[in-house]
Amino acid sequence: MVKTKNPETVRRGRPGYDQQSVLSVAVTVFNKHGYEATSMGILAENLGISKSAIYHHVPSKGDLLRLALEEALGSLEAILEEPGASAGRADDRLEYVLRRTIDVLTEKLPYVTLLLRLRGNTEVERNALERRREFDHKVAGLMDAAREEGSLRSDIDPRTTTRLLFGTINSIVEWYKPGGKLTSQKLADDLISMMFDGLHLPTAARVIA
Amino acid sequence: MVKTKNPETVRRGRPGYDQQSVLSVAVTVFNKHGYEATSMGILAENLGISKSAIYHHVPSKGDLLRLALEEALGSLEAILEEPGASAGRADDRLEYVLRRTIDVLTEKLPYVTLLLRLRGNTEVERNALERRREFDHKVAGLMDAAREEGSLRSDIDPRTTTRLLFGTINSIVEWYKPGGKLTSQKLADDLISMMFDGLHLPTAARVIA
Repeated sequence: MVKTKNPETVRRGRPGYDQQSVLSVAVTVFNKHGYEATSMGILAENLGISKSAIYHHVPSKGDLLRLALEEALGSLEAILEEPGASAGRADDRLEYVLRRTIDVLTEKLPYVTLLLRLRGNTEVERNALERRREFDHKVAGLMDAAREEGSLRSDIDPRTTTRLLFGTINSIVEWYKPGGKLTSQKLADDLISMMFDGLHLPTAARVIA
Repeated sequence: MVKTKNPETVRRGRPGYDQQSVLSVAVTVFNKHGYEATSMGILAENLGISKSAIYHHVPSKGDLLRLALEEALGSLEAILEEPGASAGRADDRLEYVLRRTIDVLTEKLPYVTLLLRLRGNTEVERNALERRREFDHKVAGLMDAAREEGSLRSDIDPRTTTRLLFGTINSIVEWYKPGGKLTSQKLADDLISMMFDGLHLPTAARVIA
């Protein structure tokens, strides 16, 4: 993990930033303009400091990208090590992992956004995409297990299901506003209800209604 | 619509392209490098013709973008004028529109991809985003109507439902391979089953299984 000085101390220092806060601004700028289109000059402008002051915190633009992607990937990978992801019925483990993935998405929104928009043009990007594929692959394995145990429908190719499910979850970064009326918890409830139980009212309920 | 000459005739001509085929290559290059990062020089290189030969087909890079976005938006907007979108129960009209949207996504994949990745930095982009929002807004209206008529569950905020549904549909452009084993028709069946009936087997079926 990235070591940072006590932020109180650092903020009184002249450049006004520690590595973590430089990173936070950099990620916002990368998401706005695209990583490739963002020069160190643009970053310096957005931070209100000189280019050499940025190099005091981080050796290169690629390192900023690497650190930012680590924030997202490290948090996602850690989910799979949690007890809820490894014990119990596959269906419950799958739900647990999806709920926690939504937590990470909403808590680390700009970092996950950056990860999901990667094109894979550099070594750092290709490495991050490989780790993301590995995470997706493990979640797909949980879906297969849930299907095997008879919890999930089997008339849809599991590859299609996995892709549609990730498509739904990943699209959250495009519109979710942290701190708004919709909590991460309620969003997770809604997504799980929709994907696993469907939007249609059960026929019985429709007859009564 | 764009008028094109018979491709057989045109391909024997010297520049080797008509406007539609220049457009098709341009869209692929825009999707690969990003619209802003693509210069007319890069386009010329990919087309294997000179910059001035491109200007013979289209006055500017912005016009290529406008024509490409028209391909996507015109097709999407036309769906809402079809009889299946305007007559019958809201639930059926909604399903019709979603199925046809998936058709357009898979048939005009690169054009819709370009539309979905827009950042809105130019007038042409902002205009296209406005038309896309208008389309989304009309589909959201159908969902509201389906909920009103008692076809859809009402414990999820309709704005959340709409966003998750579009997230799922739009994510198709990121992975769908036209001409592969998964037909557009089967993909539409799968997506409709998953979103409206859910991935879980009904409890009764699970007890039997």
